[in-house]
Amino acid sequence: MNRITLITPPDAQAMKSAREIQSSLIKPAGSLGELERLTVQLAGITGAIPRTVPRKAICLFGSDHGIYDEGVCSSPQDFTRRLMEVYAGSQRGAINVLARQAGAELRVYDLGVKGLGEYPGIITRKFLADGTADFLHGRAMSPETVRAVISFGIDVVRDMKREGIGLIGTGEVGMANTSPACACIMAGLGTRDDSLVGRGAGLDDEALYDKKKVILEALNFHAGNLTDPVNILSCVGGLDIAAMTGVFLGGAVYHVPVLVDGVISVAGAMMAYMIEPLTREYMIASHESAEPAYVHAAEHIGLTPCLKLGMRLGEGTGCAIMMRVIDDAIAIINGMATFQEL
Amino acid sequence: MNRITLITPPDAQAMKSAREIQSSLIKPAGSLGELERLTVQLAGITGAIPRTVPRKAICLFGSDHGIYDEGVCSSPQDFTRRLMEVYAGSQRGAINVLARQAGAELRVYDLGVKGLGEYPGIITRKFLADGTADFLHGRAMSPETVRAVISFGIDVVRDMKREGIGLIGTGEVGMANTSPACACIMAGLGTRDDSLVGRGAGLDDEALYDKKKVILEALNFHAGNLTDPVNILSCVGGLDIAAMTGVFLGGAVYHVPVLVDGVISVAGAMMAYMIEPLTREYMIASHESAEPAYVHAAEHIGLTPCLKLGMRLGEGTGCAIMMRVIDDAIAIINGMATFQEL
Repeated sequence: MNRITLITPPDAQAMKSAREIQSSLIKPAGSLGELERLTVQLAGITGAIPRTVPRKAICLFGSDHGIYDEGVCSSPQDFTRRLMEVYAGSQRGAINVLARQAGAELRVYDLGVKGLGEYPGIITRKFLADGTADFLHGRAMSPETVRAVISFGIDVVRDMKREGIGLIGTGEVGMANTSPACACIMAGLGTRDDSLVGRGAGLDDEALYDKKKVILEALNFHAGNLTDPVNILSCVGGLDIAAMTGVFLGGAVYHVPVLVDGVISVAGAMMAYMIEPLTREYMIASHESAEPAYVHAAEHIGLTPCLKLGMRLGEGTGCAIMMRVIDDAIAIINGMATFQEL
Repeated sequence: MNRITLITPPDAQAMKSAREIQSSLIKPAGSLGELERLTVQLAGITGAIPRTVPRKAICLFGSDHGIYDEGVCSSPQDFTRRLMEVYAGSQRGAINVLARQAGAELRVYDLGVKGLGEYPGIITRKFLADGTADFLHGRAMSPETVRAVISFGIDVVRDMKREGIGLIGTGEVGMANTSPACACIMAGLGTRDDSLVGRGAGLDDEALYDKKKVILEALNFHAGNLTDPVNILSCVGGLDIAAMTGVFLGGAVYHVPVLVDGVISVAGAMMAYMIEPLTREYMIASHESAEPAYVHAAEHIGLTPCLKLGMRLGEGTGCAIMMRVIDDAIAIINGMATFQEL
């Protein structure tokens, strides 16, 4: 984690060059909005005008969550394992379909999925065999585990960059994981406003009421220890969120743009931003999740998602769709005629 | 135009089948939001579950606008012709780039571009040689011309469908054309709220003030005649908007989904909706234009765009980006595993 001292602001000169190219193209200044901004950001991150479409990957972190036992999730817990086996086996999960559409490779990591052993196509990297502990009356995991998982997330980016990957999406699977995500966001914002707690995969009114109670009680139990991102993750986080925190830090360390997905991903992004605010410059928002905590976290970081698809599936599905918008932006800066030619 | 009596509601049975398939796929019910809704809508429009990615085309209507003479536009008027020559010549306009990205064919129509003769790659269909008349103190065009252009727009869809095209985008080019678009929308809504008037390609504060005055004065001049869509288009419309009105009607007549682009396109969509409200069911919104009138028109029709890219270029650029989201939706309904398989 001491690599985070290496994080620097994006390359201002490259951003200026990208802006100059954009204003030379045959369109009213600024009229392509986000498509223009994205090319400026990519130039700042990598230090050069993006000339070709980057090689893409989505890292999907699977893990289970002890808080499941408190009844905060409407799906059977072994869906985590069964979905992991779909991603790697038949490859017919939503993210498999959308990653193929985007031309992105999918890397599936088992950080601690209950009952999942070695499986072809899954990278086994279990930090806790059965996932985190129930955080209602104790820490989800130790601060040491958090640091190790964050460091692993940074390594993921380092290794992907070595392979030539230039754009990374962040996905996850893990029954009950909107609860730690929401708890981390509320802890980070210092709020106890339970309207941030959402229905996840589809809780009814009564179950939503109970989920709110569980999260508020947990935040109260841990109140004295929610002092910094590592402690927040240790008290009320998840292995998936910690890994994503690392990936967002890694993006900034290794100058690789990283896409934010939904509410789990934005919780990781927020933890990374709290550790080092410059990480924001290396993040690209994708879709606005239908989970209420998403908007609060994105606003806090200063991210504005451009896809409003009413999605709340996770897995990195929003990142996959956004990847093609980024391809479009790169095509524009390279493919359009200039006013001089006109 | 009497073909519009043929318009029927979308196929409820096909929509039900699509919903059933969606709820069988391994994801929480409704968690893919718009991607699910789009497949249901496509099923309703075509009467069948979309099984393959449709052949796509974007029709780009070029025309000039007499209201240009009132100083409502910051670009030289011959940019209309010069841009048309780029779309068909070097093919390096923004829409050329984005249509290629989307795998869509671009059809460029000259409905009345000043100084543009026959040109390879441009379909010449001049309804008025130099475009519409200045509508500040007279009609932009006759009601007969409006009817002919609308009928032509319907024909465009009929012919495209015969060719096997299954998804149509709507684009335009024409200096000053946000003025007629805004005037049509304000007339249709029966409002004189000049906050709907936007900066188009980039007017400064003073020029925006003048543009507002011109549009309000024109709406007052024509007040007694703004009784129905054909008269609105005749008084304060444009050839591009009338053609798009036809394309949206044609989509509903021939059961082809048609994408709404920015403020010019949504003005055409609104005129079609006023003629026959069922046309709405055959429209798909793409991006939310940065021009203020867009949101008002979209809301009136009942369209919710899912792309928020801050774009205001026109040409059909928003449609092109949205086409790949539609491809994603079709991939999902065909590519995902079911709970039964799980």
